[in-house]
Amino acid sequence: MRITIKDVAKLANVSISTVSRVMNNPIAVQEEKRARVQAAINELNFEPSSFARGLINNRSHTIGVLIPDILNPYYSGVIRGMEDAAKSLNYVLIICNTDRDEQRTLSYLQNFRNKHIDGILYTSDFMLPSYYKEIDQYHMPVVLVSTESKQYPLSSIMIDDEKGAYDAVAYLIELGHKNIAFLGFTLPDPITGEKRYRGFKQALRASNLYEQCKSYTAFANNWFEEAYRSVAQLMQKHPQITAIFACSDEFAMAAIAYLHDNNLQVPKNVSVIGFDNVRMSWMVTPRLTTIAQPMYDIGYKAVLLLHNQLTNEFNSPSQIILPHELVIRDSTRAITTP
Amino acid sequence: MRITIKDVAKLANVSISTVSRVMNNPIAVQEEKRARVQAAINELNFEPSSFARGLINNRSHTIGVLIPDILNPYYSGVIRGMEDAAKSLNYVLIICNTDRDEQRTLSYLQNFRNKHIDGILYTSDFMLPSYYKEIDQYHMPVVLVSTESKQYPLSSIMIDDEKGAYDAVAYLIELGHKNIAFLGFTLPDPITGEKRYRGFKQALRASNLYEQCKSYTAFANNWFEEAYRSVAQLMQKHPQITAIFACSDEFAMAAIAYLHDNNLQVPKNVSVIGFDNVRMSWMVTPRLTTIAQPMYDIGYKAVLLLHNQLTNEFNSPSQIILPHELVIRDSTRAITTP
Repeated sequence: MRITIKDVAKLANVSISTVSRVMNNPIAVQEEKRARVQAAINELNFEPSSFARGLINNRSHTIGVLIPDILNPYYSGVIRGMEDAAKSLNYVLIICNTDRDEQRTLSYLQNFRNKHIDGILYTSDFMLPSYYKEIDQYHMPVVLVSTESKQYPLSSIMIDDEKGAYDAVAYLIELGHKNIAFLGFTLPDPITGEKRYRGFKQALRASNLYEQCKSYTAFANNWFEEAYRSVAQLMQKHPQITAIFACSDEFAMAAIAYLHDNNLQVPKNVSVIGFDNVRMSWMVTPRLTTIAQPMYDIGYKAVLLLHNQLTNEFNSPSQIILPHELVIRDSTRAITTP
Repeated sequence: MRITIKDVAKLANVSISTVSRVMNNPIAVQEEKRARVQAAINELNFEPSSFARGLINNRSHTIGVLIPDILNPYYSGVIRGMEDAAKSLNYVLIICNTDRDEQRTLSYLQNFRNKHIDGILYTSDFMLPSYYKEIDQYHMPVVLVSTESKQYPLSSIMIDDEKGAYDAVAYLIELGHKNIAFLGFTLPDPITGEKRYRGFKQALRASNLYEQCKSYTAFANNWFEEAYRSVAQLMQKHPQITAIFACSDEFAMAAIAYLHDNNLQVPKNVSVIGFDNVRMSWMVTPRLTTIAQPMYDIGYKAVLLLHNQLTNEFNSPSQIILPHELVIRDSTRAITTP
């Protein structure tokens, strides 16, 4: 017997029209109801294909996803959420690594057009004019994920990076640290890099530590190896540093590796706080204190947002900010020698 | 001016027919020549689409990839290789997380058929009769990646897991360890789990340590948390253990976390060796000694193999074994109290 939308509505204890909205305009449905409907869909193994097809004609049910690099665990976290949402709405994802290379990215965009995909999830990194020029011709919805654009009218979903960085540094100050360093992405980085740097500076200013710490900065290009070298220079120049705010968990691990290689213990001698809360952050020794991004939710809701744009013609772009959270583990502690 | 195959041939200093073979039957081209042609294609930003289309008609240029979970960094390593190969041959990848769930996997397979994909990369995990029954109807090529099937005539690409495990344990024995434990995937696991367990036992037998160590075994289901609990039981029961062979780097990290939480230092008190060499294995403290799988190559060559099957009608299935390598870092050392 074929499972119908009625069965789903009954099991979830909602009306049929609510189930229909979850399928077609989920962002308009209360979180709690949406979760119930989703649970019912999963339990009954309800296949929304024919139903969705009736409502959304002329679609390939394929979403193109651009990410810098799948090897970065931040993106695999986001993609996991995207994929679960895509599955529940009967889309599949085409996933492409851009390596932040303009030609490679443009070539993927053109390929997306040739493949008649329904929409694009442009994940992280700056929306270059050349990309927008290309996308603008396609007349297909685009959602910016973990990034945003001041210049172009595009929907976006991300956290408040500035506030996240502020919270990280404020926590180090609360622990009594007065010599706090910043390990960030090489500037100019118009998306997260500059915002997190601003958050760092603001938290220091709020506690009158800015003048003292303003030269404790080191930058690197997204990779562990480079971050390790930057931390080495930083610590050699400013051995009085007792706490490091790293702009990613990978950078935090690079800081810990350097400190360990030089007989400095974390957190005994130096506290380190990361950013993202990737899966490995609770597997390492010491377990990382970090600012957690809701990666799964960012990915899941990005698909809902894109789907919403696909199914509602008169949508205006929306900017969604999801909450972050300070997760305290073992890589930070109160300073012992004030 | 449009870049042509002639420009690629000239830059790579090969014949046009070699370039053509790289595009259509790359596995038949010498590694060194293939790399040169690939470099020329990249440098010129040569777009093989129309060329490839002429030779391969009636294709969607889309490959369906089934993996258990993108959050596992082993799979993101493999996918990175797949994606680079796909890009060079003008395919895109549809990536689906099966969660090792039969219904979810079957639903993806049916979706692949509806989407008219060209072929399937079935990555890790056992090929169930229900999957094969489904796939067999589609008449499309399938390559098993990091897995194999004794039962069905399918191509596969993987390492020699039994030999990899043997090499790991033989190295621990060489370091003087006599109380060596195994931390593996819950049995029965007809793919890597049982092979790595066999490799463990054989290395012990070869040094007459099997009787002494045979009860030093712990098992877990692919996740850090469960591995942590298993190691706890193992160490409480057999505190004489001085070395642990973990069947994945994540399991190795679980072992290190447990040991650290219980004031046992790695490698001073206990040596730990992992398996896979995922990106994080050289970021953690201590850096992991591990058996490195060529994840990128496995993914890259899986796409070449699939492409080969797509473009050559009279192919018989082939089983490719790629080499593994012992990578010695900081989590193992010679025993001090023999």
